Amino acid sequence: MQMHIDEGKRVIIERLNPEIDGGRFPIKRVIGEKVVVTADVFADGHDAVWANVLYKYQNDDTWQEIPMLFLENDRWQGGFIVEEMGIYTYTVEGGVDHFKTWQNDLKKKYDASQDIKTEILIGIQQIHDVLKRVSGDDKKKLLEYIDFLRHEENKQKAMKIVLSEELSNLIKKYPDKQSATKYERELAIVVDRKKALFSTWYERFPRSCSPKSGEHGTFKDCEAILPEIAKMGFDVFYLPPIHPIGKTNRKGKNNSPVSVQDDVGCPWAIGSQEGGHKSIHPQLGTLSDFEQLMNKAKDYGVEIALDLAFQCSPDHPYVKQHPEWFRWRPDGSVQYAENPPKRYEDVLPLNFETEQWQQLWEELKSVVVFWAERGIRIFRVDNPHTKPFSFWEWLIREVKSKYPDVLFLSEAFTRPKVMYYLAKVGFTQSYTYFTWRNTKKEFITYLNELTKTEVKEYFRPNFWPNTPDILPEHLQHGGRPAFMIRLILAATLSSNYGIFGPDFELCVSEAIAGKEEYLDSEKYEIRYWNWNKPGNLKDFIARVNRIRKENPSLQTTRNVQFYEGENDTILSYGKVTDDASDIIFVVVNLDPYHVQSGWIKVPIDIYGISADQPYLAHDLLSDDKYIWQGEKNYVELNPRIIPAHIFKIRKRLKKETDFDYFM
Amino acid sequence: MQMHIDEGKRVIIERLNPEIDGGRFPIKRVIGEKVVVTADVFADGHDAVWANVLYKYQNDDTWQEIPMLFLENDRWQGGFIVEEMGIYTYTVEGGVDHFKTWQNDLKKKYDASQDIKTEILIGIQQIHDVLKRVSGDDKKKLLEYIDFLRHEENKQKAMKIVLSEELSNLIKKYPDKQSATKYERELAIVVDRKKALFSTWYERFPRSCSPKSGEHGTFKDCEAILPEIAKMGFDVFYLPPIHPIGKTNRKGKNNSPVSVQDDVGCPWAIGSQEGGHKSIHPQLGTLSDFEQLMNKAKDYGVEIALDLAFQCSPDHPYVKQHPEWFRWRPDGSVQYAENPPKRYEDVLPLNFETEQWQQLWEELKSVVVFWAERGIRIFRVDNPHTKPFSFWEWLIREVKSKYPDVLFLSEAFTRPKVMYYLAKVGFTQSYTYFTWRNTKKEFITYLNELTKTEVKEYFRPNFWPNTPDILPEHLQHGGRPAFMIRLILAATLSSNYGIFGPDFELCVSEAIAGKEEYLDSEKYEIRYWNWNKPGNLKDFIARVNRIRKENPSLQTTRNVQFYEGENDTILSYGKVTDDASDIIFVVVNLDPYHVQSGWIKVPIDIYGISADQPYLAHDLLSDDKYIWQGEKNYVELNPRIIPAHIFKIRKRLKKETDFDYFM
Repeated sequence: MQMHIDEGKRVIIERLNPEIDGGRFPIKRVIGEKVVVTADVFADGHDAVWANVLYKYQNDDTWQEIPMLFLENDRWQGGFIVEEMGIYTYTVEGGVDHFKTWQNDLKKKYDASQDIKTEILIGIQQIHDVLKRVSGDDKKKLLEYIDFLRHEENKQKAMKIVLSEELSNLIKKYPDKQSATKYERELAIVVDRKKALFSTWYERFPRSCSPKSGEHGTFKDCEAILPEIAKMGFDVFYLPPIHPIGKTNRKGKNNSPVSVQDDVGCPWAIGSQEGGHKSIHPQLGTLSDFEQLMNKAKDYGVEIALDLAFQCSPDHPYVKQHPEWFRWRPDGSVQYAENPPKRYEDVLPLNFETEQWQQLWEELKSVVVFWAERGIRIFRVDNPHTKPFSFWEWLIREVKSKYPDVLFLSEAFTRPKVMYYLAKVGFTQSYTYFTWRNTKKEFITYLNELTKTEVKEYFRPNFWPNTPDILPEHLQHGGRPAFMIRLILAATLSSNYGIFGPDFELCVSEAIAGKEEYLDSEKYEIRYWNWNKPGNLKDFIARVNRIRKENPSLQTTRNVQFYEGENDTILSYGKVTDDASDIIFVVVNLDPYHVQSGWIKVPIDIYGISADQPYLAHDLLSDDKYIWQGEKNYVELNPRIIPAHIFKIRKRLKKETDFDYFM
Repeated sequence: MQMHIDEGKRVIIERLNPEIDGGRFPIKRVIGEKVVVTADVFADGHDAVWANVLYKYQNDDTWQEIPMLFLENDRWQGGFIVEEMGIYTYTVEGGVDHFKTWQNDLKKKYDASQDIKTEILIGIQQIHDVLKRVSGDDKKKLLEYIDFLRHEENKQKAMKIVLSEELSNLIKKYPDKQSATKYERELAIVVDRKKALFSTWYERFPRSCSPKSGEHGTFKDCEAILPEIAKMGFDVFYLPPIHPIGKTNRKGKNNSPVSVQDDVGCPWAIGSQEGGHKSIHPQLGTLSDFEQLMNKAKDYGVEIALDLAFQCSPDHPYVKQHPEWFRWRPDGSVQYAENPPKRYEDVLPLNFETEQWQQLWEELKSVVVFWAERGIRIFRVDNPHTKPFSFWEWLIREVKSKYPDVLFLSEAFTRPKVMYYLAKVGFTQSYTYFTWRNTKKEFITYLNELTKTEVKEYFRPNFWPNTPDILPEHLQHGGRPAFMIRLILAATLSSNYGIFGPDFELCVSEAIAGKEEYLDSEKYEIRYWNWNKPGNLKDFIARVNRIRKENPSLQTTRNVQFYEGENDTILSYGKVTDDASDIIFVVVNLDPYHVQSGWIKVPIDIYGISADQPYLAHDLLSDDKYIWQGEKNYVELNPRIIPAHIFKIRKRLKKETDFDYFM
């Protein structure tokens, strides 16, 4: 038990927020984001107190001080904006405000017509106490105040001066720091670049990018589709593993345990005679082809993200070079991955319990550094939950200390505590349970967990309607409307989202019977697509992504608020920027089969619109414009046309003559 | 920012509960109470884990280990009972359970008809790993298992043995502690004697205890009323300050700033030429009279509690001996207590900001020790919130290190954060806002705050319907029924409660107009009472206190649960012991003016009674017995008779022939 008694410190600072696990983990922000700090700050008795937020950047020597404002019930609040990438530290300090206490008491006594002559003398003493900490002009000014108070006979005049804002502010500049309390912990913020919070991902197998049926796609083919990817509004192009694929125990089509001659294997079975995690699968091209793709992508405003899958095919060079990094069975065979009774014979897990763990960690770090040195700044990490948390905490810290702009997306489809813990130890973004949330109640519960609890401080969701591993039931059965619904939900609920294409924009819905897995999955074979097939969603996706880009309120996730509505198949929610300059109001029909309608509530009070003030609801999807008034409004959504509205809400000009301004 | 990476530790232990402010403060228990510890315990991957609660008493060298049980969602639970007064420490440890993981996987493979020959060999390896930590008989047994597994050809037989409870339990005894994780903090429990949790207080001014009008009451008079106090069922007799009372600025009757010759002054204006906090007011008797009262009280099962009011009259010896402990004003006068515009000219606050604070702290401690040496073990502390928190933390720790059975009741009628913080720094019990809670909703909200949040771990409420300072509005207007209602609420909602008598049992309701203060308050004058006045509540109080004594479920507060009912003026709640052997169900009419009735819901599922099983509801107040069945039952309460039921619920015997057993 800690029992530190600070005798001279009368002020208590408690329940500082945000603070993750007693300061064990940092909170996360991106450049330009605000950090709002609240804390209980109080002293014994009835004395007034003051409180500051203190913060500093990396190795800065001195704290920046931000005065906190009193909220209620001994709670104080202050905030600041983080401007640089890297690590910030923050804490709170507070002390007894003797001068303010004296002012308060004096006023009460004066109002009760009590004699204040001696009180004024006490005030002079107090100013003298403050003077010890003052020099220069302020000292001169304070001495003038003392002089004035010594000689002023008119009580009313004296009162006006001692309670004046000028004197109060002057005194406030010189709090008694010696008897002040500093909160017992200093807390950290990891500040990332903006893309950590606002990113739009497109995943696609490069080997399926060839325009010619029968050919193995290449990095050059990927280059060719960059314009289309950019046109759809994506800014991250994420490639499944691009390394040599093992031959031993290679899987056949549809995850068959037996492969035949032409089978190309699973890209996650990494490593062959041609190399491992630092090599390129020859059929995709060369390292220099890859670097060219990266550069070309940059021209389109698109960043290439790589897959980080720390596992090996039985043919990976590590198996011979470092047998001690693998598990060997009593029969002499190497242990492949399994989740009994399932077997992944083409993949060997690394044994993190090896006695040679230090070499293993260093080697894995060198893989990340290898690609970072070549310009990669985004990694999507495969199954991080099957490697130790301490490894990730170390790896991410090491990498970010050299490359603070690197982002790690955690693909941990696992139990909630594990998923959250990986975010705590450092992952920048995380896959979520969004894929399996369907009803209004489920969305509200889950989004509130992500955005209204402590989770929001360290876990940045990235919503995926589909992945190569998951074709969820609703997409199997709901047709094109279901794809539109899931896209709008992902893109407007979460500022980070992504799709696995071209399956998504082509509304591919053929699954293995009774499973949420793609039939003829690209994980095990090359597919050829007619990307411009009628009914594709490319234009629709482009429109949604343009709306995201043009409306800053959609570029963060924490601000989502759900609204009331009478129809449980209609989900309505909104996002508003801090300054309320951008108001987005989304209404989604969750039912891909039927027209749904009903009254919804627009929270005009939050939007700063009065009940008698008409306002413009501009549907950015259809470009329709509605003049609405009051809270209740009627919507009707046909999923076969567009299953949602994404309204931009604008206050109307007040003059009748300006009405046609909007129409 | 802390960033400690334990490379070898795969298990994470998080969200340990209870834990107050990251372990800064201990939780509180009494002898015989249970400590239930929960924590998230998980590892990467799919490996099974084990978890123990560790605890030890004071300076014990070794931890007691209690295996935790898995609840759900990676949460584990374990508990233990504290048996000794003093300080306990507890924490949690956990590790990967390789053998259990192997068992789980083996079973899945076996069930899927996969070959398990090599798996059995791996199991043998695992047992060998465990053997390194085993000796004696267990070693022999494990070697026998290995031998058996090596030679058993029958798969089914082998499976039965490796999954057997005996082998599992044997292995469980020897977890791999080296790679285990210990939670990063050790947390403390302050264990008090039982009275800290279950006490029944009676406050009375000794000077008003004389049976003869016109005479100053004495300790001998207090002795004389002990039998009646005991008969009413009180076990703490708390006396307002018994020290010499100052004469300078003495207050007159009804807090008049001017006193006249015969005025006796306020006992909280402590200190005169006759002494200070270690002296006895001569008109009450001598120190030996007081010690005799203490001993006599003990014979009646009643403990004397003293008032600890750290403040001084202007005549207190400290003022001359230690002028530096007081505040002096520029006009040379000493600063009296004030809460502007209110003035307490007869009381000087101590200046805890004095440079001589160390001597001051030591002197105040010597006051407590002085009375502790004479046998006092309960202190009611006056206005602790006007002295520094660090002082109390130090004082209480110092006193309890020598006298662990001392209890401190905090009289902090102040803001909630301050009230709670005083409990955190060490106060055993605390006055509460109960006195101002009136409606069903208010009671439920407040009691849930006290008993269903973290507050329950460190804040022990003591409910007072009245005090010398507070005659609440509902007692001014509600008549005798209001007094009965408040008594039942205090006595059955909280295991600690008290009344200020004889004002309470005589239903004294005369207040100063527009205030919650007693008219002709005993704080400023001696009163004479006819304690046996018709209509007094002495018998009623005795009955309620007997019910408390006979029913262990009423001897704790955390177990209160509120139940549904259709009438908002009827509050219904229950308390059940851990073993469900004592079930108390209370129904109170909150309206002192009208008969109220309605359906209430009895939570028979919690009581372990099925819907088709009649049960006995025995009203311990009226001694009426009801046979009820099902959840819904009707009650009608006339406040002019008894405004409440205190039912003891008993399951009925099952045989029809036993029916008259209860009637």
